[in-house]
Amino acid sequence: MRMSRLLVPTLKEDPADAEVVSHRLMLRAGMIRKLTSGVYSFLPLGCRSLRKVEQIVREEMDAAGAQEVFLPIVQPSELWLESGRWEVYGKELLRFKDRHGRECCLGPTHEEVITDLVRRDVRSYRDLPINLYQIQTKFRDEIRPRFGLMRGREFMMKDAYSFDMNEAGAEEAYRKMWDAYSRIFARCGLRFRAVEADSGPIGGSFSHEFMVLADTGEDTIVSCDVCDYAANMEKAEVPPPAESAKAEKPCQFREVHTPGASTIEQVSAFLGVSHRDLIKTLILRTENGPVAVLVRGDHELNEVKLKNYLKCTDLEMADARTIEEVTGGPLGFSGPIGLKKVTVLADHAVKSMGSAVVGGNKKDVHIVDADPRRDFCVHHYGDFRFAQDGDPCPRCPQGKLGLSRGIEVGHVFKLGVKYSKVMNCTFLDADGKEQYAVMGCYGIGVSRTVAAAIEQNHDDDGIIFPPAIAPFSVLVTPVGAKTPEIETAAETMYQKLWENGIDTLIDDRDERPGVKFKDGDLLGIPFRVTVGKKAMSEGKVELRNRKTKQTELVDLDGIIGAVKKALDEWTPE
Amino acid sequence: MRMSRLLVPTLKEDPADAEVVSHRLMLRAGMIRKLTSGVYSFLPLGCRSLRKVEQIVREEMDAAGAQEVFLPIVQPSELWLESGRWEVYGKELLRFKDRHGRECCLGPTHEEVITDLVRRDVRSYRDLPINLYQIQTKFRDEIRPRFGLMRGREFMMKDAYSFDMNEAGAEEAYRKMWDAYSRIFARCGLRFRAVEADSGPIGGSFSHEFMVLADTGEDTIVSCDVCDYAANMEKAEVPPPAESAKAEKPCQFREVHTPGASTIEQVSAFLGVSHRDLIKTLILRTENGPVAVLVRGDHELNEVKLKNYLKCTDLEMADARTIEEVTGGPLGFSGPIGLKKVTVLADHAVKSMGSAVVGGNKKDVHIVDADPRRDFCVHHYGDFRFAQDGDPCPRCPQGKLGLSRGIEVGHVFKLGVKYSKVMNCTFLDADGKEQYAVMGCYGIGVSRTVAAAIEQNHDDDGIIFPPAIAPFSVLVTPVGAKTPEIETAAETMYQKLWENGIDTLIDDRDERPGVKFKDGDLLGIPFRVTVGKKAMSEGKVELRNRKTKQTELVDLDGIIGAVKKALDEWTPE
Repeated sequence: MRMSRLLVPTLKEDPADAEVVSHRLMLRAGMIRKLTSGVYSFLPLGCRSLRKVEQIVREEMDAAGAQEVFLPIVQPSELWLESGRWEVYGKELLRFKDRHGRECCLGPTHEEVITDLVRRDVRSYRDLPINLYQIQTKFRDEIRPRFGLMRGREFMMKDAYSFDMNEAGAEEAYRKMWDAYSRIFARCGLRFRAVEADSGPIGGSFSHEFMVLADTGEDTIVSCDVCDYAANMEKAEVPPPAESAKAEKPCQFREVHTPGASTIEQVSAFLGVSHRDLIKTLILRTENGPVAVLVRGDHELNEVKLKNYLKCTDLEMADARTIEEVTGGPLGFSGPIGLKKVTVLADHAVKSMGSAVVGGNKKDVHIVDADPRRDFCVHHYGDFRFAQDGDPCPRCPQGKLGLSRGIEVGHVFKLGVKYSKVMNCTFLDADGKEQYAVMGCYGIGVSRTVAAAIEQNHDDDGIIFPPAIAPFSVLVTPVGAKTPEIETAAETMYQKLWENGIDTLIDDRDERPGVKFKDGDLLGIPFRVTVGKKAMSEGKVELRNRKTKQTELVDLDGIIGAVKKALDEWTPE
Repeated sequence: MRMSRLLVPTLKEDPADAEVVSHRLMLRAGMIRKLTSGVYSFLPLGCRSLRKVEQIVREEMDAAGAQEVFLPIVQPSELWLESGRWEVYGKELLRFKDRHGRECCLGPTHEEVITDLVRRDVRSYRDLPINLYQIQTKFRDEIRPRFGLMRGREFMMKDAYSFDMNEAGAEEAYRKMWDAYSRIFARCGLRFRAVEADSGPIGGSFSHEFMVLADTGEDTIVSCDVCDYAANMEKAEVPPPAESAKAEKPCQFREVHTPGASTIEQVSAFLGVSHRDLIKTLILRTENGPVAVLVRGDHELNEVKLKNYLKCTDLEMADARTIEEVTGGPLGFSGPIGLKKVTVLADHAVKSMGSAVVGGNKKDVHIVDADPRRDFCVHHYGDFRFAQDGDPCPRCPQGKLGLSRGIEVGHVFKLGVKYSKVMNCTFLDADGKEQYAVMGCYGIGVSRTVAAAIEQNHDDDGIIFPPAIAPFSVLVTPVGAKTPEIETAAETMYQKLWENGIDTLIDDRDERPGVKFKDGDLLGIPFRVTVGKKAMSEGKVELRNRKTKQTELVDLDGIIGAVKKALDEWTPE
């Protein structure tokens, strides 16, 4: 392709409304333009990267035995009513009526449609297992779309759904998708990690997220420095600490007056003790009544873990009235001593605290020298907090957990019979008995992967695309373009690269070398071949690696080989 | 791919609600399933054909210098208000509000979005010409969706938009798209014809439709049996007849009583004359007042031609009151004699009528022996009727027009400055002067092309796909599958075909030969390789052409060559 003919409206200035790197650089490189809130047009360069990711996804899904289908975007309400999600999905599900007044929605996901398809057309165990996927536009009416393609409303997604005869089959399908995802992101040239994710309170199911590693990522990854344990924040387990054999202090707990101090910061400052000497007493409300949860002052409650333990669906901080009912005291001064009206749960770390500061259940009162084993009742100790940097690994004895950042680009999920049961998706097994199909679902954010690649790979000059998903692999840049020999040599080079199957762009614009180099760096094309007077006089051109910024002079007739070698040897590390 | 693992839910019976061949066969072959009215899911076989058409379209659009983009499905109302189409588009434009109450629509087409993109990012004549295309889901809320993919609501379309500096550039862009379309449908293996189409009353623009020829098509094609003139019904021109030098009859016209006879059929039966001896006098209403139009009794008024002549946008049959005002008589008895209050237009054919029957402008009265040159005033003779079988060709002296059927799969349209003017899409020309970009737009119904291919190519047994867009090129069918040698030979054959880049399906199901053959014919895979005991004992397999139903015995080691030859030699004729 020729830059002079290609629509690549690069911007010199950073756009005002771009909050994250990928959004800023995709706008500046002329890859995308905003149409309306959270909805973007892909210009030629953006479209090329999108199609490249799409093709890698398609090839690996096919290789894993999944079958491509293409399902509608507009879906009837009936199926969503049947699955029960018409009520619970919330406003992200964009609903509307068609001209005949029939309720429809724009598909944010396709469990209902695919389950309906399979229950109609798959009847026997002989038709299973089956895995159907599609690559398609999705719409989720996010309340606050932002960060460009990272949290848009309309986006390109690959979604796959597997149907198996039994749990073992479903786990095999899950493993195959896991492997396919690993190949996909590896082929995209990305550094990534699969992490355990929470799968909600449905028993028996499990889930992993595929994270592209990037310091700018909005997700936190918890991983062990010794073994291969990794999980997202919601899921990351914290093992109970090795019990320290502290002697119980003989002294009694006592009340202290802490006027105006109710937060951890205020109390620890007032009493001159560290956060880790405090116990937070949190009163929460669930659909089954209130509950009190104790966590160490420097720890944070993980509500997902608590929800999973309680098997509840609603969980929120209690209001002042409930707190007063439960503790007898005001908001901000709750403590565990004397609590009788609620179940008291505590994080493991609380158990090994010797002498702690807790709330006094009276205005402006705290209690010091409280001992969990002596002074109050805990009904259950469990893992109820978020992991922290330096926590021990839940899988191996020596490992310590560390935190890093990532961007979720894929999610594999064992659904079990959640949808097949409620939508009656059954098959006849070998004994002629009706069984529910065991399902899995597997998503990849195709447009998000392009953005995540940029979050991971960029510098001050612009994007640094991995070759496999770059709009072009090579950029031929003639400098001194008005010299006919340069022009001819660059043109010949460009033709030769195309003929060798290398996706090449030539910057044939009538621009100064500085402008061309700057734009080339911004677009992030992995390799640049510069055709200039000086090198040409020695029969050479310059080959530059966008990532390492290293250049080498290459003989004119060795350039194809050199480019191929450079592309082959490119690694994400 | 293996039939045993592929989701191909073939149906033995014709589905009740399928009205046309392609709908019926795509359901029966398990290519599509209806999700809701006019909205279909593509199953694996349907998806494969769709992707093949898509890829041919993409390659030819790229080769023609168009650039792929990917525009949103959800569009904001603002742009449609700006173009004026928010008001005029009607209920086919599906409108809704998002969670913040902003008015949006589902894109039925993308003139507004693309014009907005280009006006923002293209500023100089140096950036032109440009042609941007996308392959994407569209939604049109048809009032009565039917015929499966032929008139659906959600469908896959390729739409391209060209922007040029001037008329000459726009015409060149148009020609390039015409050529690309011809290559696309030829590569799809379809018999097709480009026909002139009406482009509405906007001066200076023109338009062609690409029609797949099929007896079951819903469109009529008018074409010359000598030259290459072809047009759709709306557009097909009828030249004025060679004036016959009839002598004026000396006799006077006279009134006859025709009780209860007001239609052409009734009057001609009552008077015992042929339809062609009658003149229909039609009174119509436009936004500029009423008009009378005369056409011969056996001809039909073409309202599009009339609209274009009158340069009006509203045109409808007048009601009884208007007719009485204009003619003084009741509905059903209008005639041209004595009309004074309206412009009288007549089709050319009226001019050469010697003595005609016309309405008498009184209840139950007609007039016989009326002579257009003697008895009434015609303000303008023109081409106002639909062409008929046997009409003379408007382009060549000997040709006669014939009517045939087709299915519109593509449309190229020179838009001119219609959108660029109203949306202010300008560029600076070489003199620094602001100019409107001259636009064209070019559509292909990608999913419709698959259906049209089936309308053109089928027999009583099922679909007969052209190889280029068949889900698979070759079907390997082992018969007597329980014999290990047959199974092994078929498997080897299947592997070899894949390795040679031939898209192959193997029917490895445990089914009787009859079932396999029947399903194979239904799916329409162009070539079948049958691996059976008898032929195998002589080291041969059978190669069958789905279209010609001819079979040949081929040596086992010659089969790859034979299949390649058969695929190469396949023609749509």
